[in-house]
Amino acid sequence: MTGFAGLSLNQATVTKLEVAEAVDLCVRHDIPAIGLWREHVARAGLAASAAHVKAAGLQVSSLCRGGFFTHADPNARAAAIADNKAAIAEAAALGTDTLVLVSGGLVPGRRDIGLARRLIADAIAELVPVAQDHGVRLGVEALHPVFAADRCVISRLGEALDLAAQFPADAVGVVVDTYHVWWDASLLPDIARAGDRIVSYQVCDWILPLPADTLLGRGHVGDGHIDFPPITAAVAAAGYTGHIEVEIFNQTIWDAPPDETAATVTKRFPQIF
Amino acid sequence: MTGFAGLSLNQATVTKLEVAEAVDLCVRHDIPAIGLWREHVARAGLAASAAHVKAAGLQVSSLCRGGFFTHADPNARAAAIADNKAAIAEAAALGTDTLVLVSGGLVPGRRDIGLARRLIADAIAELVPVAQDHGVRLGVEALHPVFAADRCVISRLGEALDLAAQFPADAVGVVVDTYHVWWDASLLPDIARAGDRIVSYQVCDWILPLPADTLLGRGHVGDGHIDFPPITAAVAAAGYTGHIEVEIFNQTIWDAPPDETAATVTKRFPQIF
Repeated sequence: MTGFAGLSLNQATVTKLEVAEAVDLCVRHDIPAIGLWREHVARAGLAASAAHVKAAGLQVSSLCRGGFFTHADPNARAAAIADNKAAIAEAAALGTDTLVLVSGGLVPGRRDIGLARRLIADAIAELVPVAQDHGVRLGVEALHPVFAADRCVISRLGEALDLAAQFPADAVGVVVDTYHVWWDASLLPDIARAGDRIVSYQVCDWILPLPADTLLGRGHVGDGHIDFPPITAAVAAAGYTGHIEVEIFNQTIWDAPPDETAATVTKRFPQIF
Repeated sequence: MTGFAGLSLNQATVTKLEVAEAVDLCVRHDIPAIGLWREHVARAGLAASAAHVKAAGLQVSSLCRGGFFTHADPNARAAAIADNKAAIAEAAALGTDTLVLVSGGLVPGRRDIGLARRLIADAIAELVPVAQDHGVRLGVEALHPVFAADRCVISRLGEALDLAAQFPADAVGVVVDTYHVWWDASLLPDIARAGDRIVSYQVCDWILPLPADTLLGRGHVGDGHIDFPPITAAVAAAGYTGHIEVEIFNQTIWDAPPDETAATVTKRFPQIF
């Protein structure tokens, strides 16, 4: 695991747990970091969440998530920008320098995918000075093309990188999530090209058959079809030294006892190297 | 519609019809061409299918499909090659110069996606002389990345083109299917780059929500999120002058009266321009 800061449990993997419970779960399983979600933090309270994480001695590897910029309506657009500014401040308050962005799908009622992409670039431009003020980097996440219409028109790491490269490296980077990008023939060269723009490395497996809700078709490392070691090696070679987040959306895993999930996550973690 | 040969109904859109019924449907709706499927042709008989299409005055725009090359086992691999040679001969007998390839997913039990890609290139190399002998072009189809693990590791038009470019242009081309490639930020430049390698242009729409069986999540043109006119214009500008096939996998459409489906296909067709 040379070079990496270690394992992080993304809270979405045990989504039924509140912040304090998820933090305690990490402590019980010697997981040194956690990726937090804004909805959970809002329920627990920002200050209380930050205090609990700090008291437990945990690192916060990222905050999920900002984004959803693709509104043509000025009011909806202004609301999205305001919400993302709040998310940046929350990330700083929680002690993480990484805010993950899910940029948004097609503009409601529109088919012009170029318009959606331009709106995303314009929104990030507005957020860059705020991110820099707070010492937080925006992590543009490429989502699997199955989500292009409704969640994120940025579908490949290379595309996320081309977008990020329009902005200063201390403000905008990219997220590498194996689930979303494993299929891409250009993945390894794109990771090399990303270099120090990589702000987060997230892992989970691609399992078949897909469930009815495609969002929930992720599996524990080793349960699916992704060849992790070449991807992990490329991320390391690119110079990424942060945590590796295990983020799994899967109803069966959500319904399992969290300690069982954390034990599986920890046990499977070596398989990504 | 300048430059294109006209509409073609891919038989998969009315999959419950046998060859003769699908041909008669096209005639009733003034659809000048049909894309045939091997399973249907096998049931009806190759000679009988060819005769029925010819008697009806229809063009055959393509035969679906060859491919599924990603076997490490020598016997399975030999069987796939033999089957594809038969498919080439069937295409020629049916009077079409286009055999659509769905290349295959990951090798069974293996996660090495590079291995799958090499097996595909090697298989196509074996088929090239056979294709040339029969005057048939192999159309490498990029499938949506949601099918990368189980059906086709060739996920983008650019990747299909890089593969095709390793072989003579009279033997290997690419298929542009809007459903599979609409999300790709490099789609329009890749279509321009494809030029006379484009052997088939297939259209249907990306609809949401996805059905439980992702294979069946396609819609009539206009029912979903794809911006067709820029794609059609790019295909025309690239020099493609063949038919435009409407190919829709959708249980509701399959359960609808075929004449209703054909009427909708014909009515919606102008929306792609």
